[in-house]
Amino acid sequence: MDIVLAAILCGLAAVLYGIVTSRSVLGASAGSERMVEIAGAIQEGAKAYLGRQYTTIAIVGVVVAVLVFIFLGLIPAVGFVVGAVLSGVTGFIGMNISVRANVRTAQAANSSLQEGLSLAFKSGAVTGLLVAGLALLAIAGLFYTLVNVSGLAPNDRTVIDGLVALAFGASLISIFARLGGGIFTKAADVGADLVGKVEAGIPEDDPRNPAVIADNVGDNVGDCAGMAADLFETYVVTVGATMVLTALLLGVGLTGGALYALMALPLIIGGVCILTSIVGTFFVRLGKSQNIMGALYKGFIVTAVLSIPALYFATSWALGGEMSAPIGAAQQALEPALGTSAADLEQNFLAATPFTGMDLFWCMLVGLVVTGLIVWITEYYTSTEFRPVKSIAAASVTGHGTNVIQGLAISLEATALPTLVICAGIIVSYMLAGLIGIAFAATAMLALAGMIVALDAYGPVTDNAGGIAEMAELDESVRTKTDALDAVGNTTKAVTKGYAIGSAGLAALVLFGAYTEDLKFFTDQLGLEGPVNFSLSNPYVIVGLLLGALLPYVFGAFGMTAVGRAGGEVVKEVREQFRNDPGIMAGTSRPNYGRTVDLVTKAAIKEMILPSLLPVLAPIVVYFVISWIAGPQEGFAALGALLLGVIVSGLFVALSMTSGGGAWDNAKKYIEDGNHGGKGSEAHKAAVTGDTVGDPYKDTAGPAVNPMIKITNIVAILLLAALAH
Amino acid sequence: MDIVLAAILCGLAAVLYGIVTSRSVLGASAGSERMVEIAGAIQEGAKAYLGRQYTTIAIVGVVVAVLVFIFLGLIPAVGFVVGAVLSGVTGFIGMNISVRANVRTAQAANSSLQEGLSLAFKSGAVTGLLVAGLALLAIAGLFYTLVNVSGLAPNDRTVIDGLVALAFGASLISIFARLGGGIFTKAADVGADLVGKVEAGIPEDDPRNPAVIADNVGDNVGDCAGMAADLFETYVVTVGATMVLTALLLGVGLTGGALYALMALPLIIGGVCILTSIVGTFFVRLGKSQNIMGALYKGFIVTAVLSIPALYFATSWALGGEMSAPIGAAQQALEPALGTSAADLEQNFLAATPFTGMDLFWCMLVGLVVTGLIVWITEYYTSTEFRPVKSIAAASVTGHGTNVIQGLAISLEATALPTLVICAGIIVSYMLAGLIGIAFAATAMLALAGMIVALDAYGPVTDNAGGIAEMAELDESVRTKTDALDAVGNTTKAVTKGYAIGSAGLAALVLFGAYTEDLKFFTDQLGLEGPVNFSLSNPYVIVGLLLGALLPYVFGAFGMTAVGRAGGEVVKEVREQFRNDPGIMAGTSRPNYGRTVDLVTKAAIKEMILPSLLPVLAPIVVYFVISWIAGPQEGFAALGALLLGVIVSGLFVALSMTSGGGAWDNAKKYIEDGNHGGKGSEAHKAAVTGDTVGDPYKDTAGPAVNPMIKITNIVAILLLAALAH
Repeated sequence: MDIVLAAILCGLAAVLYGIVTSRSVLGASAGSERMVEIAGAIQEGAKAYLGRQYTTIAIVGVVVAVLVFIFLGLIPAVGFVVGAVLSGVTGFIGMNISVRANVRTAQAANSSLQEGLSLAFKSGAVTGLLVAGLALLAIAGLFYTLVNVSGLAPNDRTVIDGLVALAFGASLISIFARLGGGIFTKAADVGADLVGKVEAGIPEDDPRNPAVIADNVGDNVGDCAGMAADLFETYVVTVGATMVLTALLLGVGLTGGALYALMALPLIIGGVCILTSIVGTFFVRLGKSQNIMGALYKGFIVTAVLSIPALYFATSWALGGEMSAPIGAAQQALEPALGTSAADLEQNFLAATPFTGMDLFWCMLVGLVVTGLIVWITEYYTSTEFRPVKSIAAASVTGHGTNVIQGLAISLEATALPTLVICAGIIVSYMLAGLIGIAFAATAMLALAGMIVALDAYGPVTDNAGGIAEMAELDESVRTKTDALDAVGNTTKAVTKGYAIGSAGLAALVLFGAYTEDLKFFTDQLGLEGPVNFSLSNPYVIVGLLLGALLPYVFGAFGMTAVGRAGGEVVKEVREQFRNDPGIMAGTSRPNYGRTVDLVTKAAIKEMILPSLLPVLAPIVVYFVISWIAGPQEGFAALGALLLGVIVSGLFVALSMTSGGGAWDNAKKYIEDGNHGGKGSEAHKAAVTGDTVGDPYKDTAGPAVNPMIKITNIVAILLLAALAH
Repeated sequence: MDIVLAAILCGLAAVLYGIVTSRSVLGASAGSERMVEIAGAIQEGAKAYLGRQYTTIAIVGVVVAVLVFIFLGLIPAVGFVVGAVLSGVTGFIGMNISVRANVRTAQAANSSLQEGLSLAFKSGAVTGLLVAGLALLAIAGLFYTLVNVSGLAPNDRTVIDGLVALAFGASLISIFARLGGGIFTKAADVGADLVGKVEAGIPEDDPRNPAVIADNVGDNVGDCAGMAADLFETYVVTVGATMVLTALLLGVGLTGGALYALMALPLIIGGVCILTSIVGTFFVRLGKSQNIMGALYKGFIVTAVLSIPALYFATSWALGGEMSAPIGAAQQALEPALGTSAADLEQNFLAATPFTGMDLFWCMLVGLVVTGLIVWITEYYTSTEFRPVKSIAAASVTGHGTNVIQGLAISLEATALPTLVICAGIIVSYMLAGLIGIAFAATAMLALAGMIVALDAYGPVTDNAGGIAEMAELDESVRTKTDALDAVGNTTKAVTKGYAIGSAGLAALVLFGAYTEDLKFFTDQLGLEGPVNFSLSNPYVIVGLLLGALLPYVFGAFGMTAVGRAGGEVVKEVREQFRNDPGIMAGTSRPNYGRTVDLVTKAAIKEMILPSLLPVLAPIVVYFVISWIAGPQEGFAALGALLLGVIVSGLFVALSMTSGGGAWDNAKKYIEDGNHGGKGSEAHKAAVTGDTVGDPYKDTAGPAVNPMIKITNIVAILLLAALAH
């Protein structure tokens, strides 16, 4: 059977799983009339937001699609549209399940913790497997259509441009979804917390708070729809970049069949891991200890362990059983043809020594190990059981200031171990199989996306379930159960973000490799005099690194300001509602939830545009400005350095923000569990401040850095192609 | 007259100015007995701290000096000791003036704002000119002794090693002083604020607060002694690196006399700017508008403008009047001899086209312009008059959380313009005269250090004066005047830090250039197979960049944690004093100030050791680990990339922390001026939290990144020399 077709079947299996499981979720009881009513308000708000967001994105999307068509042709334009539309579809379906699973989870938690967990996790698994499945279908479908149906060579420029454009489509939607959703969710959350918990002294999710529905809508549009689009993008870009790099590096040296097999390998890797992820979902069950994190880990570990043999057999099958025959040998014939001197060649890591299928398999294991370590490290930094979170909680005793200082310290510190793990992953996979090895390690990381997203998407469902339980005045015991589920959700959400940005670290190297290879390929068309000088001794490289490193900072500033500003507006709106109608606080009249949702929707859409365009425009501006000053040779050098500058700085900004934010959140939960005086104590007030600060860190600015890094890289590659055309 | 001797005379002029001016400061009235008593307590605390700190540093210093002697020989060991001792002396004298000027400033402010400003500024000018003067004397003296007295060639290895070791000595002390002082000052400040302003509701500097003396001591050991050591280091490293780079790049090509002149040029640049700085100090006078910042700017602008002709004549004189003859032509003969191919040469920015004296002069102007722009940008971000500070103040109205979020957003944003200025500075000076041009731009920036430090060191004096006025219960009008002086101090302190880190951005490139040139020089001794591959396509370069970028984060985490921890201890100590003796709050019994000073001293010394050693050990560990994995060729590549990674990431960490911290501080002051409800309002409480968070940002972690960057680079250069020996 054809490898790509097999991968497509695996993708369809994921979709099938999604359909069956979502039916099972929707078949559960939605509880009392009051619960249905509340859930209805959340559904309505979410739908309204997503509708308006997608309309805005569609306008940008159509403009960009036309530009892609003009500069690159029809196939890339189609690829762009497919990537963009499927990314949107993933977020849309995931969110629709999520806003229906929330109320059912609250109802199920009424029976038992296990049932609540099951329902919430199933809903997450639908989103997770749709992300992986649709992403795989998009790439495999495009590749199959162009190569097997249209008969193009696997390394034909049209195929390469199509794959890159597909990734661009996914990335562009993703950054809007991540940022828009992130601003919405945190503006609502920050606003609701400040005016409710801090000022009015009413609990979280109190129905008297006019921002409470907006807050619950936010969980879905940010943590579910935004996150789904983000991981869809990460998947498409990583797998796509691995295929493109394979085509560029080995395209001349390998025969058609061997190249096809190697380019199809990332697809089948994704395919078999969808199957292991589906198996893993059935292992998420509470043990005797009732440990929720343990239950989720069981699913993850089963998937990871099963993936090891699955990856071996997939690789062996794709390579025709030849696990120990050298693959990359022929590439050395390629390099001199592109005008590189023999001395350069020796130093050029793209022309690594030949590697075998076995080497690639080891690289995939590196990817799995990196994933496991990042999960473990993130848990250490964000779980209530370890030093970091406890230290923030302890610092809360001495006030707001020390809480924030300690949280910032932890956020800085949390970058260290992941960076060391990523560096080790780079070195080991590079030693095994050169840049191709790094690409396959990253692909194996992303292959687990189905399971990882399932763990994450379960978070907003439980968060909402808690809110609904509170508002529908369900028994206190239900809230206790949903709170327990939610605390774990904070950690799993941080884990996904750490995983996404960690994989971005590897993927960005692959993208940079694709950029440099493309530069070589286009040397003549671009009118270059010779190889571009990417040495650190070139001051334009330094300038590129500095400008690239600046992007995540400016981007972060935009995101934080947006949340601060929109959150402040929510506070004013809620204060006004309280002032105009004293009946709200007395509980005799209903606040106007819709007006608050509407306000946040408008604010989020308005605020997301400018920062989203930053990574799209920056590479273009830097290239043209430096070219104008010092010629295209240095323009391309600065642009290449910009790509690495973004990742070098973005990795740290994103890791520190997502881990720090998760730690702040759980430090508050730790205090609420009765430590340091518990709820209502001065320490708790300080912890609420820390949590508020962490909100835009972990849910707006931090996670959006991941698509930002990728989009910068992809735009640079497209710019090359457009200039060469 | 010999150029170096002339520079030495200028250095002596600075010392003379220091002696005369400090006499004039000390001659002023110290006020009432109560004031003398309070000032005495501050002096005593500062002396005790500095004594203990220097003892600790001395132990580390002796060990390192022995290591330098063993691995590099006698002259470098002497250079190291000179650098270390003079750095310590600068801090010691500066602080001694500062703790005596504080009480006299309070007394002078009793008469008029002008007299207060005059006294405080004079005290700052003593420190400023001693920093520049002693730094210049150290380098010029060492160079003169080795070249003119001992008769070594200016580019003799002994001279180069001596200069690098001198810089190392200054850097090592500086990082301890910056970090130890920074932890002391902010632990005391944060602790005093939290327990005094926030908990007990007593004003800042209330004598009932047992941490109040420690807070005032902290201003001196941190903002004065620490800052003086920092700028001393920056000066020595920048000027020294420019000389070393000149020797390495042009040493073979130029004749002895021409090389001597070019190496002496940075010294005379420093010399003439000391003279213009002295002139500038006499222009710091209030105009009719009573604008304090305007008065300080007058001095700065006079210095900067006078420096333009001074630099021209100094350059012309050093180069024998040959401003338009090409200087660097001969270097092209040098490069091929070191085994570089002609193609590489063409791309190698070290082998720039020949430059003239006029080109160098333009580069110096670039340095002055960069300085001016950074001053202006920093003022924009930290002064109460512009959008950033006002936006933080406005965000305080909605609570602690939104204040901190907005402050973080501003701190991220504040990196953008300085980065663009630095990039422009790099490009323009590189186009004028290659790497040498960047070096001279950096030298010209640092040449203004005398004036810049004067502006900065005035800050702690006024801060203390306010505290003394409060404690000695002087008339309210005195406090108003010292507060006005102090608010400007917050901006000038931020300006100095922005300037220091901005110059570090340029200096680090110079140091990286020295590292790569040294690598070429030592190719045979180090057993290298050829040029090291610093291309971004080399994964070990990526790993080096990532590890380098990690250092400022880990370092920042250490610094923040240290302040949080030590500050928390202060809170506990003060609470205990309040609890054990209710008479303290009633005002009937005196708190035990000494015990708090003692506690902070011990904490600061303990906390400074580990993070200070991080940048010393990191380059060594990275080199040996990567060499062990992939051979010395890649080890040197990763080490080189580490150096650039530190600056690429450190620049942003430092800029964001110092600007953000300054903005938070002044947002509080802005509210205290009566905006958003003024003192005591909810907005004010939120602003106090922001100020507390900003404290370790701007005074501990942020500024210490500057010496950290330099020390990493210098250790790498010394490691090369040690390995080659």
